[in-house]
Amino acid sequence: MSDPIHVTVWNEFRHEKQDEAVRSVYPDGIHEAIGTGLRQEGFEVNTATLDEPEHGLSKAALAATDVLIWWGHMAHDEVQDEIVERVQQRVLAGMGLIVLHSAHFSKIFKKLMGTNCSLTWREMGEKERIWCVAPGHPIAQGLPPYFEIPHTEMYGEYFDIPQPDTLVFVHWYQGGEVLRGGACFYRGRGKVFYFAPGHETFPIYHQPEVRRVIGNAVRWAAPVQVKGYRDLTQAPNVPQPIEKLG
Amino acid sequence: MSDPIHVTVWNEFRHEKQDEAVRSVYPDGIHEAIGTGLRQEGFEVNTATLDEPEHGLSKAALAATDVLIWWGHMAHDEVQDEIVERVQQRVLAGMGLIVLHSAHFSKIFKKLMGTNCSLTWREMGEKERIWCVAPGHPIAQGLPPYFEIPHTEMYGEYFDIPQPDTLVFVHWYQGGEVLRGGACFYRGRGKVFYFAPGHETFPIYHQPEVRRVIGNAVRWAAPVQVKGYRDLTQAPNVPQPIEKLG
Amino acid sequence: MSDPIHVTVWNEFRHEKQDEAVRSVYPDGIHEAIGTGLRQEGFEVNTATLDEPEHGLSKAALAATDVLIWWGHMAHDEVQDEIVERVQQRVLAGMGLIVLHSAHFSKIFKKLMGTNCSLTWREMGEKERIWCVAPGHPIAQGLPPYFEIPHTEMYGEYFDIPQPDTLVFVHWYQGGEVLRGGACFYRGRGKVFYFAPGHETFPIYHQPEVRRVIGNAVRWAAPVQVKGYRDLTQAPNVPQPIEKLG
Amino acid sequence: MSDPIHVTVWNEFRHEKQDEAVRSVYPDGIHEAIGTGLRQEGFEVNTATLDEPEHGLSKAALAATDVLIWWGHMAHDEVQDEIVERVQQRVLAGMGLIVLHSAHFSKIFKKLMGTNCSLTWREMGEKERIWCVAPGHPIAQGLPPYFEIPHTEMYGEYFDIPQPDTLVFVHWYQGGEVLRGGACFYRGRGKVFYFAPGHETFPIYHQPEVRRVIGNAVRWAAPVQVKGYRDLTQAPNVPQPIEKLG
Repeated sequence: MSDPIHVTVWNEFRHEKQDEAVRSVYPDGIHEAIGTGLRQEGFEVNTATLDEPEHGLSKAALAATDVLIWWGHMAHDEVQDEIVERVQQRVLAGMGLIVLHSAHFSKIFKKLMGTNCSLTWREMGEKERIWCVAPGHPIAQGLPPYFEIPHTEMYGEYFDIPQPDTLVFVHWYQGGEVLRGGACFYRGRGKVFYFAPGHETFPIYHQPEVRRVIGNAVRWAAPVQVKGYRDLTQAPNVPQPIEKLG
Repeated sequence: MSDPIHVTVWNEFRHEKQDEAVRSVYPDGIHEAIGTGLRQEGFEVNTATLDEPEHGLSKAALAATDVLIWWGHMAHDEVQDEIVERVQQRVLAGMGLIVLHSAHFSKIFKKLMGTNCSLTWREMGEKERIWCVAPGHPIAQGLPPYFEIPHTEMYGEYFDIPQPDTLVFVHWYQGGEVLRGGACFYRGRGKVFYFAPGHETFPIYHQPEVRRVIGNAVRWAAPVQVKGYRDLTQAPNVPQPIEKLG
Repeated sequence: MSDPIHVTVWNEFRHEKQDEAVRSVYPDGIHEAIGTGLRQEGFEVNTATLDEPEHGLSKAALAATDVLIWWGHMAHDEVQDEIVERVQQRVLAGMGLIVLHSAHFSKIFKKLMGTNCSLTWREMGEKERIWCVAPGHPIAQGLPPYFEIPHTEMYGEYFDIPQPDTLVFVHWYQGGEVLRGGACFYRGRGKVFYFAPGHETFPIYHQPEVRRVIGNAVRWAAPVQVKGYRDLTQAPNVPQPIEKLG
Repeated sequence: MSDPIHVTVWNEFRHEKQDEAVRSVYPDGIHEAIGTGLRQEGFEVNTATLDEPEHGLSKAALAATDVLIWWGHMAHDEVQDEIVERVQQRVLAGMGLIVLHSAHFSKIFKKLMGTNCSLTWREMGEKERIWCVAPGHPIAQGLPPYFEIPHTEMYGEYFDIPQPDTLVFVHWYQGGEVLRGGACFYRGRGKVFYFAPGHETFPIYHQPEVRRVIGNAVRWAAPVQVKGYRDLTQAPNVPQPIEKLG
């Protein structure tokens, strides 16, 4: 319990290289903005990006990761299926996964949800207000009944996800939509949290409440250590009954 | 509401051709045993099997199906990925899917769940007792607090599925295991029910309580007709806000 | 299945007697407006009101009711505790209960939820937009992705209810709030649906979409017939094990 | 986070005074056996019992309690309603509550669940096997896929509780029953965990796995600190909209 939680922040890292407006908001990349916030909370943070070998997600890197944060947008299709399966299995074996904003449409989120994970969107810089509907949940720690993001990309229902194990936040948008935008899912021995805010052209990952949500989510998603479990990819025969049959 | 529900019973249909013991229990195939039960309840029933073209699941066949029942075991890998995706999208667009017994390890169930769907198993013909833990759910209709299957294959926890939207049955096995063996999942606009009993060497699909569960599940899983929904595979831009921004 | 569902619409029926503005919207009482909508869908409908003996909810009346609809506001405290317990036990024994609008603060809803069921409110006649987040649920039948109520009383989060078994609707309010305003709960052998719209000074129960939601909810909440269950108020000793102990 | 969690173990403490067999298992009372286990894990532990003034649950005592553990059996009715309401409101305001064994029928558990909380039972000293169905949940920390209680009182389904927010354990009994015996519920800003084992005539609270479950549950149920929430018993008018109406 006293060891720091090891976080890997994965970022597609393309917008920042190609678009001056994005670079002005996130000069070192979205991953570094998120990573800075997490380091300030005492987590041990590494980063990984799409264009690294194996997207920076080698078996060793994943094995050393307690919680993986995922941001992607324009290049979901370039993520190799083999790596996606590797991440999926690492989640099912216990790693936490935090899926941010446009990564709703990432291969890994769709694979873990089993649904299309589609929604509607609009980019006008309207206001977003995030209401907590689970104030007893650890992801609500330190937060008020609601907080605002002054300029956001709208993400609206119907959002094609399974009903969450716990719905933590419901998002109001000025233009008339709502979103189940903070949602927890148990999957295998791991945990997944989707959080909607974070468009690349707005300084959302510099906002204290957003950083707090992500930090809380890391603590919530950190692996639980159990013992004696089988490899969950296997369905073994157990020929000997535990109880003698009468 | 007065139209009959259109059910397609899909069966791998291999064991019955290769194994005399199985054929003696299900001379016309598992699909016909299940289909007979459903026809007696007034459903309109078709069947489809692995070795038919497109596994009997053409686009037209799926479009005409309200609820698809799936039984597979030894040849999960022979089901083409393209057909699996087709079925997945049809479920997310509203079709019901009932996944039986060894189909816990089918491609379609794993794809819709996002998990490994693994469990432990033992084939000794032990007793199974099925307890209802959701007596207000329509799948419990007409059933007592518990019923028994005299000889079964054991399927035990940990069963690697997401926590169900509603857990309807918990299964007790003589040899010492339990299973969340009757489980409902909303996915997209569709519904999925997994039901554990049904090994090919036992006459389980002739048993009245099992037939009743399957019939109830068909009624529960039948599509809900909504209007004006987008294609859920798409995440459209909606540039015009519903509400005028201030 | 072919028998009509027996609905009792319970209304406090005080506002309509005391307030001309309310009477002009609901001249025969809110219960008659709701009842008219339900009769048009083929349900058999009775009404009951606070000032009748036993509030119109005698044991015989409840025994003959499949689904009870509850509207109350200014006189929650006048509902006798004995009747509240009677309704609670009838729900736990299988009756459906649909709780409307200001009845979030009724004794019966608080008793069945175990929480305070409090929320925030504002009466400015602002716009409400109701988004469906469970398009596969039977309460969504026939409805579009969202519909609007032109003038409403705002009901806002945090709404102190347990997390619903299924969250069907999320409500957007013009003034900046959201609400989990269409929520399903299994309780005992019965089912409960809370639906937020319906202030006494707005003609909300004349609106077709609202009537459709209530009609759908009646069908969803109708009792499931099971057999052989004990009286759920009792925890009986079962001294004889089902299985012989080894 | 570094402050110890303050636990109050409440015990009816009657069996131990009246029954030599119980006293021989729990010479200092069940509360002291549970408390000893918790102190060894570093929690700060107080105890309270039925026959103390206000049952040991004064407002000050509850205000200083992060997590309350409740064991009762023969004297549920002697717990004053006023104290039950006080505990309920403290839970809804954030305190954790762990309800053990026969306290399924306590006033406080029934009040928080809204259901009868009844089950079936048998006292033969049969074997119980506790299967984890949520290995990613913090209450599973350090535990294997299942563990056994050699001699137990059977508690069987149908257990009249709401469907849990997370079902952590399913219990197998030698005599043929199952139980959803480890169940988490969010209620208000607080959390509730029910755990079935613990009959007064068996040394169950001396068993390491049981102590671990209770310790894990304390950590899970500890309050989350949020800020700026209203008193949840109140439904305040908020006449000023957050957003200017158009």
